[in-house]
Amino acid sequence: MILALSGGIGGAKLALGLSYVLPPEQLTILANTGDDFEHLGLAISPDIDTLMYTLAGLDNPETGWGRRDESWAFMEAVEALGGATWFRLGDRDLATHVERTRRLRAGETLSAITAEFCHRLGARPRILPMSDDPVRTRVLTIQGWVDFQDWFVGQQARPAIRAVQFQGTKEARPQPEAMALLASGTVRAVVICPSNPLISIEPILAVPGLRQAIRECGAPVIAVSPIIGGQAVKGPTAKMLAELGEPVSAAGVARRYGELLTGYVMEPEDDATGITARVFRAPTLMRGLPEKIALAKAVLAAAEACRA
Amino acid sequence: MILALSGGIGGAKLALGLSYVLPPEQLTILANTGDDFEHLGLAISPDIDTLMYTLAGLDNPETGWGRRDESWAFMEAVEALGGATWFRLGDRDLATHVERTRRLRAGETLSAITAEFCHRLGARPRILPMSDDPVRTRVLTIQGWVDFQDWFVGQQARPAIRAVQFQGTKEARPQPEAMALLASGTVRAVVICPSNPLISIEPILAVPGLRQAIRECGAPVIAVSPIIGGQAVKGPTAKMLAELGEPVSAAGVARRYGELLTGYVMEPEDDATGITARVFRAPTLMRGLPEKIALAKAVLAAAEACRA
Repeated sequence: MILALSGGIGGAKLALGLSYVLPPEQLTILANTGDDFEHLGLAISPDIDTLMYTLAGLDNPETGWGRRDESWAFMEAVEALGGATWFRLGDRDLATHVERTRRLRAGETLSAITAEFCHRLGARPRILPMSDDPVRTRVLTIQGWVDFQDWFVGQQARPAIRAVQFQGTKEARPQPEAMALLASGTVRAVVICPSNPLISIEPILAVPGLRQAIRECGAPVIAVSPIIGGQAVKGPTAKMLAELGEPVSAAGVARRYGELLTGYVMEPEDDATGITARVFRAPTLMRGLPEKIALAKAVLAAAEACRA
Repeated sequence: MILALSGGIGGAKLALGLSYVLPPEQLTILANTGDDFEHLGLAISPDIDTLMYTLAGLDNPETGWGRRDESWAFMEAVEALGGATWFRLGDRDLATHVERTRRLRAGETLSAITAEFCHRLGARPRILPMSDDPVRTRVLTIQGWVDFQDWFVGQQARPAIRAVQFQGTKEARPQPEAMALLASGTVRAVVICPSNPLISIEPILAVPGLRQAIRECGAPVIAVSPIIGGQAVKGPTAKMLAELGEPVSAAGVARRYGELLTGYVMEPEDDATGITARVFRAPTLMRGLPEKIALAKAVLAAAEACRA
């Protein structure tokens, strides 16, 4: 069994690669829910949805979020009513949020709802939220602490950040199936996908018990660098690292993960100075499906090498 | 000022006619909210929406509910997720429900939300819910008491009914602007639109204080028969009256309203036996806009005749 920790776009690309290499019952994805928020009264789980849509072949490859072949009649009508339009919800995507919100209010867990949606939509690997309790990522800007989506989408990630915090991590319980899996001795590798460490991976590791369970599961922990040549492929990773005074480099991200890592997969040309984990070189830019599959294979080979 | 009591389709037709005859500031429509319900976690107000869409020129004349030029991507996606599809919500219509639900949860009244929506969409006459408190129409069938929409839409109004009740009328407070208007001495006529008496008009009259305020407002109360030649133009009015053992006739409806009525507008050919109110004859079938306007004029003329 492979357990992959993932945020949205970049992580979902590797998860898709892994899903082509592994039978679905051997892949579990532990998804960041720190980006979750309530919008228009609806419960939105951006990373879960990106993973779910990607693994079901329903993702929108142009935007990296939402569904392909989407229409926007709802959004136009919301605008006509004077409602908020800064966070775009497509007509089809909306069904996910409305139905999830209804079920959450009826007392179902996010885990159970996600499992049902994945089954219905045809996303075969198991996707688990990091917790069924709310954890909310917030960033400190010059205007004070703001919710992540207000900054990321509402302000297009423009204001410089000075700190990141994960609200709710004191009370949040780790997802029980993930904990059981980690304790089972059946995990052959924990894969940290090339997601933003600050807002996609670290919220997962901040859920009480998860980091320790990963360290103690007996399997190698293999991360894939989200930084190539000092730049992030997509999103605000590089900007955020720089604003927090962190090195914008593959090695810098590896050092953030520290002794949690057994192995680190990074671009052949990038500098590995100071990385304590075993370094594996592979092309990490995943444009098409063949590159996603090749990287997935490289990650699994790295894990096997670390086990040997 | 004219105050019109209305349900959905039939009432909205006359309301539209009145809106062409009266300046918008001289027409207030008091809408039934007994059909309101929560669906997919959203607050749905069918009669308010039919009135609002009709007066804004956004109604769907084929269905009598929802919006014209509608699309159904959301509904298809809900179905794919295993959600409930028996009550159809179009992509544009959905914006009304999502935004209304969000505002209700934020503590706004249905009255304030409806006023804002009407302003935004261009429905100029004032539309007031009969109450900002929940009143829920229920019907007794052989299977017991069921919520109105479960019977009306979910069961296509098929099971015979034995009784109708309006849950919440003990606690519900009448809409304050409507009460102030009725007490102001400025009302020239109260118009009871040709809506279903059992489920559209009687819920309004069941809100504590409203019936008495109408009786004491000093203006004639003019109803328009929803029955033509022993048949309802649309909807389950005739079926429901028959199942309750009531005469399916224009005169039967007038007798239900009883001494509340000053005048009654009905089809020239229909039998007026036993009607205590003053009877006015006019064509009441409203196919096109000219017929709606003509009936509106006939109703206002009847009111003036009763005032004389």
